[in-house]
Amino acid sequence: MELIDGNAIAKAIIEELGEAVSQLNGSLPCIAVIRVGEDPASVSYVRKKVKTAEKIGMRSRLHVIPEGTTRDELFAVIDQLNADPEVHGILVQAPLPGDLDEVEAFNRVAPEKDVDGLGVVNMGKLVQEDPAGFAACTPSGVIELITRSGVEIGGKHVVIVGRSLLVGKSAALLFLRKGKEGNATVTVCHSRTKDLPSITRQADILVAAIGKPNFVTKDMVKPGAVVLDVGINRVDDATAKNGYRLVGDVEFSSVAEISSHITPVPGGVGPMTVAMLMKNTLKAYRQLNNPS
Amino acid sequence: MELIDGNAIAKAIIEELGEAVSQLNGSLPCIAVIRVGEDPASVSYVRKKVKTAEKIGMRSRLHVIPEGTTRDELFAVIDQLNADPEVHGILVQAPLPGDLDEVEAFNRVAPEKDVDGLGVVNMGKLVQEDPAGFAACTPSGVIELITRSGVEIGGKHVVIVGRSLLVGKSAALLFLRKGKEGNATVTVCHSRTKDLPSITRQADILVAAIGKPNFVTKDMVKPGAVVLDVGINRVDDATAKNGYRLVGDVEFSSVAEISSHITPVPGGVGPMTVAMLMKNTLKAYRQLNNPS
Repeated sequence: MELIDGNAIAKAIIEELGEAVSQLNGSLPCIAVIRVGEDPASVSYVRKKVKTAEKIGMRSRLHVIPEGTTRDELFAVIDQLNADPEVHGILVQAPLPGDLDEVEAFNRVAPEKDVDGLGVVNMGKLVQEDPAGFAACTPSGVIELITRSGVEIGGKHVVIVGRSLLVGKSAALLFLRKGKEGNATVTVCHSRTKDLPSITRQADILVAAIGKPNFVTKDMVKPGAVVLDVGINRVDDATAKNGYRLVGDVEFSSVAEISSHITPVPGGVGPMTVAMLMKNTLKAYRQLNNPS
Repeated sequence: MELIDGNAIAKAIIEELGEAVSQLNGSLPCIAVIRVGEDPASVSYVRKKVKTAEKIGMRSRLHVIPEGTTRDELFAVIDQLNADPEVHGILVQAPLPGDLDEVEAFNRVAPEKDVDGLGVVNMGKLVQEDPAGFAACTPSGVIELITRSGVEIGGKHVVIVGRSLLVGKSAALLFLRKGKEGNATVTVCHSRTKDLPSITRQADILVAAIGKPNFVTKDMVKPGAVVLDVGINRVDDATAKNGYRLVGDVEFSSVAEISSHITPVPGGVGPMTVAMLMKNTLKAYRQLNNPS
C-alpha cells in the first residue's frame, strides 16, 4: 500500500507555482476571497488560501462581510471585484450563512475570474471540455493526486460515491474527458444507489465524497484499488484536545490494508484544493493578460 | 418485450403542446432554425422541425445560409435572432459544414433562447440542476420515453454507451439529477472502456449512443433491461429503393428477445428529439414572457 501524501504533492505544486510567479514581469496575480460570517471552518479555509497565495508570491485580498449581509450587498462586492482589473481570481467561500444562495453567488462571479470553477459558465465549459475553463478545485486536486502518483487513469473504471456539484458531478466530468487525464469509464453512485458495495467493488479508482464518516469499509473495496477520500468529518474524540478529530468518508485503517494507493484524512485531498485554486488563479491571470 | 413507440409518444407530446399553444393569448411562440449548407440529413431534420412547429400552431423561421459562410456571417444571423423579441427559440442545425465550429455557434445563441440546450450556459445549468435551463433534446427525449412507458428511473443502474456532448454526457447529468426523473446510478462507457459487455450487462436501463450500427448485441444486455437506441446509422441495403436502410446502435432483433422494453430505429428516440425541441420552445416563450 502506498500512501498518497497530499501535503507533499500540494507543496510541490505550490513550489512550481512560486517559481512560475517569480518569473512574471509586471503585475502579480491576485486572488480575492470573500467570506461571509464567522463560521470557524470557513475562517480556517480562507486563512489557508490567503497564506498560500502569499507563499507563492501572489497578491490576495480578503473581504470579510458580516453575517446578515443581503444578497444585493454580497453581489455588489462581487461586481466590484469582477470589474477590478487588478483582481484575477475571485472565490466566494462556501457555505454561505442564512438564506444566501451559494450557487447564485458562484454564478455572479465573472466566468474569467471564477477560479473556484463552480459558476454556471465554467461548469458548462467542463461539459464542453473547453481547456480555457476552470474546473472545480477539489476534483481537479483528486485528478492531480492520481496522476502525480504515477497511476494511469485512461481505461480505468472510476467509481464516485456522491453526486454533489462541488465534487461528485464535477469529478465525473473530469474523468470522462478525452485525453490522458481522462478517458475513464465512470460510475456515479449516491444515497439512492442499490447494492452500493457491488458497484464500489468494481472500482479501479474509488472516489468517496459522500460526507459520512468511515462510510466506505474494506468489504466495499476491490483489492488493489486506488482510493481517494474527499470527506472531512468531525467525530467526537474525548482524547483529543478540542474534543474531536477529523476522519474521512473511508475507514482508513481497514481499507489501507487492501488498496494499492490511498489518501489519508487529513493530509490527502484537502491540501490539494488550495493548491489547485492557486493554479487556477495563475491560469486566470495569464488568460486575462493574453486574451485569445 | 414491449416496444417503446417513439412515434406515438412524440405524437402525444405534440398534441399536448398544440393544446397548450391554442390556449395562449397574444403572440405565438416562434422557433428560428438556422441551416448552413445542403447536407441531405440536415435538410430533412430541419424540414421536420419546421413542419412540427406548424402542426403545434407555433410560428417558425427558416434561415438557410450557403455553405462557405464565414463564422462572422453566421454569428451575425444568430445575433440578430438573439435580439429579435418575436423569436423565442433558436436552433443551429448540426453538423456545420467546413471549418465552422459547432460548439462556438451553440454558445453564441442567447442562453434564454437556446432551446437545443447545447450552449455552455445551459450545459452548466444542467450540472447545477437549474429547472429554468434547457436540457439537450435527444437525452430529454430518452428520459421522456422511459417515464411515459411507466418505467421508474430512481435507483436504477443506467449504463450509457457514448460520451458525446449531445447525448452521452447530457444524458448522464439528466439521469443523475435529484427528483423522480433522475436519482439513477449512472455509468458512462465509451471506446476506451475495458470489457464493455461486463458493464453493459449490469444495466437496468441501457442507452446506446455510440454511432456504430448493430454494436450492442444480445450478450451485452441483461435479460429484462430497458434498451434505448439513440443511434441512426445508414447501412447498405441493395433491396431498399435508395440503396440503404437505417439501423440503430443496437442489434434490434436479437436484443428485443431479452429486453423488457426497447426502442426501434427508426421510430424510437428520433421523433422525440423534435418533440422535446418544441417543448423547450414553449418553455422559452413562457420564461421570456414572464421573466422571474
